[in-house]
Amino acid sequence: MPPNSGNSNNKKRNGETETGKINGELCIPSLIKRKRDGKQLTREEVEYFVKEVVAGQVQDAQLGAMLMAMYIRGLDYDETSYLTRSMTHSGEVLKWPAEWRGKIVDKHSTGGVGDKVSLILAPALAACGMKVPMVSGRGLCHTGGTLDKLESIPGFTVSQSHANMIKILEDVGCCIVGQTSNLVPADKIMYATRDVTSTTENIGLITSSIISKKVAESLDALVLDVKIGKGAFLKNEKDARELANRMVAAGNGSGVQTIALLTDMNSPIGMNIGNALEVAETIECLHGNGPNDLTDLVTRLGGHLLYKVNAAGSMDAAVDMVAKTLIDGSALAKFQAMMVAQGVQEELADKLCLKGADVFEYLPKAKHTYEIKCSKSGHIHSIDSMNCAIVTWKLGAGRKKAGEAINFGVGIQLKKHVGDAVNKDSYNKQTYIFNK
Amino acid sequence: MPPNSGNSNNKKRNGETETGKINGELCIPSLIKRKRDGKQLTREEVEYFVKEVVAGQVQDAQLGAMLMAMYIRGLDYDETSYLTRSMTHSGEVLKWPAEWRGKIVDKHSTGGVGDKVSLILAPALAACGMKVPMVSGRGLCHTGGTLDKLESIPGFTVSQSHANMIKILEDVGCCIVGQTSNLVPADKIMYATRDVTSTTENIGLITSSIISKKVAESLDALVLDVKIGKGAFLKNEKDARELANRMVAAGNGSGVQTIALLTDMNSPIGMNIGNALEVAETIECLHGNGPNDLTDLVTRLGGHLLYKVNAAGSMDAAVDMVAKTLIDGSALAKFQAMMVAQGVQEELADKLCLKGADVFEYLPKAKHTYEIKCSKSGHIHSIDSMNCAIVTWKLGAGRKKAGEAINFGVGIQLKKHVGDAVNKDSYNKQTYIFNK
Repeated sequence: MPPNSGNSNNKKRNGETETGKINGELCIPSLIKRKRDGKQLTREEVEYFVKEVVAGQVQDAQLGAMLMAMYIRGLDYDETSYLTRSMTHSGEVLKWPAEWRGKIVDKHSTGGVGDKVSLILAPALAACGMKVPMVSGRGLCHTGGTLDKLESIPGFTVSQSHANMIKILEDVGCCIVGQTSNLVPADKIMYATRDVTSTTENIGLITSSIISKKVAESLDALVLDVKIGKGAFLKNEKDARELANRMVAAGNGSGVQTIALLTDMNSPIGMNIGNALEVAETIECLHGNGPNDLTDLVTRLGGHLLYKVNAAGSMDAAVDMVAKTLIDGSALAKFQAMMVAQGVQEELADKLCLKGADVFEYLPKAKHTYEIKCSKSGHIHSIDSMNCAIVTWKLGAGRKKAGEAINFGVGIQLKKHVGDAVNKDSYNKQTYIFNK
Repeated sequence: MPPNSGNSNNKKRNGETETGKINGELCIPSLIKRKRDGKQLTREEVEYFVKEVVAGQVQDAQLGAMLMAMYIRGLDYDETSYLTRSMTHSGEVLKWPAEWRGKIVDKHSTGGVGDKVSLILAPALAACGMKVPMVSGRGLCHTGGTLDKLESIPGFTVSQSHANMIKILEDVGCCIVGQTSNLVPADKIMYATRDVTSTTENIGLITSSIISKKVAESLDALVLDVKIGKGAFLKNEKDARELANRMVAAGNGSGVQTIALLTDMNSPIGMNIGNALEVAETIECLHGNGPNDLTDLVTRLGGHLLYKVNAAGSMDAAVDMVAKTLIDGSALAKFQAMMVAQGVQEELADKLCLKGADVFEYLPKAKHTYEIKCSKSGHIHSIDSMNCAIVTWKLGAGRKKAGEAINFGVGIQLKKHVGDAVNKDSYNKQTYIFNK
């Protein structure tokens, strides 16, 4: 007999109460039934459900059914908060030295095109004296995720033990690593199921998935970059604001000071889209030469965090603190040190960070380049970031399914951004597509 | 990679249409998404879904999610009809000799307490010249199902090949058998999943499950006994009428003339509840000594079938035809012949059917008997059939989970029915509980 089976009819007829209990004991079919009927699950019920999921006591079909019931009926603030906390405590919660208290910060983005902010922000915050234990993900669609981008640097190792993380944070101040199997195991199971059952895009499920992982990092403050527009999964401000509010509530409710910024995702962030291409742009930005939109996003997100943990007296001062690290080379030094601490050869890290270096001597590069020119003169009105993402994905920069190898070299390099003038007649670089 | 996985986000962004197709091909996550969003599934989509379920290409989690989406969003008449037909053709469809055309009939009940109608009706219809290839089920709750009741007769074998069924129908005219693994395999998979995911009680799913199995019997006519009341899963007439209409439409739409009767299920049917106890009452009824409510139900259900296939000139004549078989012993003779054809020793069948025999000399009997007397004089106003069912089930007459052994001997014998007088002072038999 599979776990948690049994005829729900019997059970209903045999003393089911309004709290998902059968004869005083919680049972999965009754919990599913309550959510199916639009009832609010209690804290006890949510905790039981998550515990049973992690213990392997919930059948796949039951998990699929419950996720669909949660998707359609929705989860309210309380249920989302219960789910977040139950998921956080489904596995290991990271512990840090007491003297770091008040300085442990991180950022999460709901996913943008050309979004290399984490690669720049983590070292910039470290240069401001923060500890940034960034646990990041791989991409399943579009371009690769943060980890995929970093893995385009030869030697960069995203898999690090908790002990290693402490050492790197002690020495450098920031690390960007993959999720260990012990961190929020409930999310691993639920996310994999959501992915194949069309139950990903639900505000309560998204919130608990994101926030539980960040709370398990034992942060003092968290900034959320909630993307809106063509290249984001949220297309309008209303939905984005709702998700942001929900995530902020869940984060604060779990003891992490949480702020969210709503940012535009109609056009790509910066000029480069693709794994190695984004690392190259990261290094440019850390040399103080980043495009305005990217630099602006990094300094604002970082500024909010610094202000939140009282590392600066005003928001303006906090933003300036971050901006300064991009100009004075201190963020670049942290990036270089982080690369070395995470397995990159010192000589390679030196070369990559040398002012004026052609980083593509050391990073994967596409074999073929295809140039797109504008057929008319004028100004660029918009650049559809979703189309850029799809092209990059089809070139091989992202995955079609989990575990697939990706191509680090391919991508798109924009030579003009929104508002720039283009001239049909005179030669000017516009967009390059780097092909395998 | 498990079957039919893949990130639905990618797919949506990569050319999903409004018909659950990805780049022109149907895909399970997109079908789930459409139902999730309350869209009507097309015939092609339903057929694809059922085909993939039977082929093992739908993950358990996906099936659970789809069933929950179907449960909450509902299936309309068209979708129910597509699902019924797809399920019918998911396996073997029974074939019969051409000369039986117009005489192949069956009955299905949505489930009653003390419901031994099938055991009486099948031989009665056979005695009227019909062919009754009754494929029945086991009970998962309450008292046992029709097959469990028959298995309380030593030797009775419900597992019969299609070839055997033809032989028995040729010789006797009726058989009552279990579902072969080849008959509507889609229902086996979906029913097992519905049972653990709290998605059983949905009108579209119930209809397709019941009607697909009956259509796969290649019937000419089908009568449905839709139960309403305390002992039924449908508590009110409105719901029962809706289910009846849906099932009649699905049956007729699949080429089987279908009639439904809505019948009362507040009080138990007849006087005996429990497996061997119901066989005993069956034999009494076939001797012409059945309680009025049971005899009435049998003759009406049978009458509708006979009238539908033009075996009688009027409904009254049709009902009389059935009633006559219970009085003249012809239905009993068919029951006796069916027992022998399905494995019961001839001598035992003879003894069981002998007028005035104590059948409990040959059938399983509970060891202990407990008598309940009324504490007040008066008339019996009602007998809660659900409570009777639960008591019988707890005594061991039904299963708590699939595959469990059941106790054939236990049950309840009512000595008074609704409307009967009871006298506190003078001794009179009222209700017996037979215990293991």
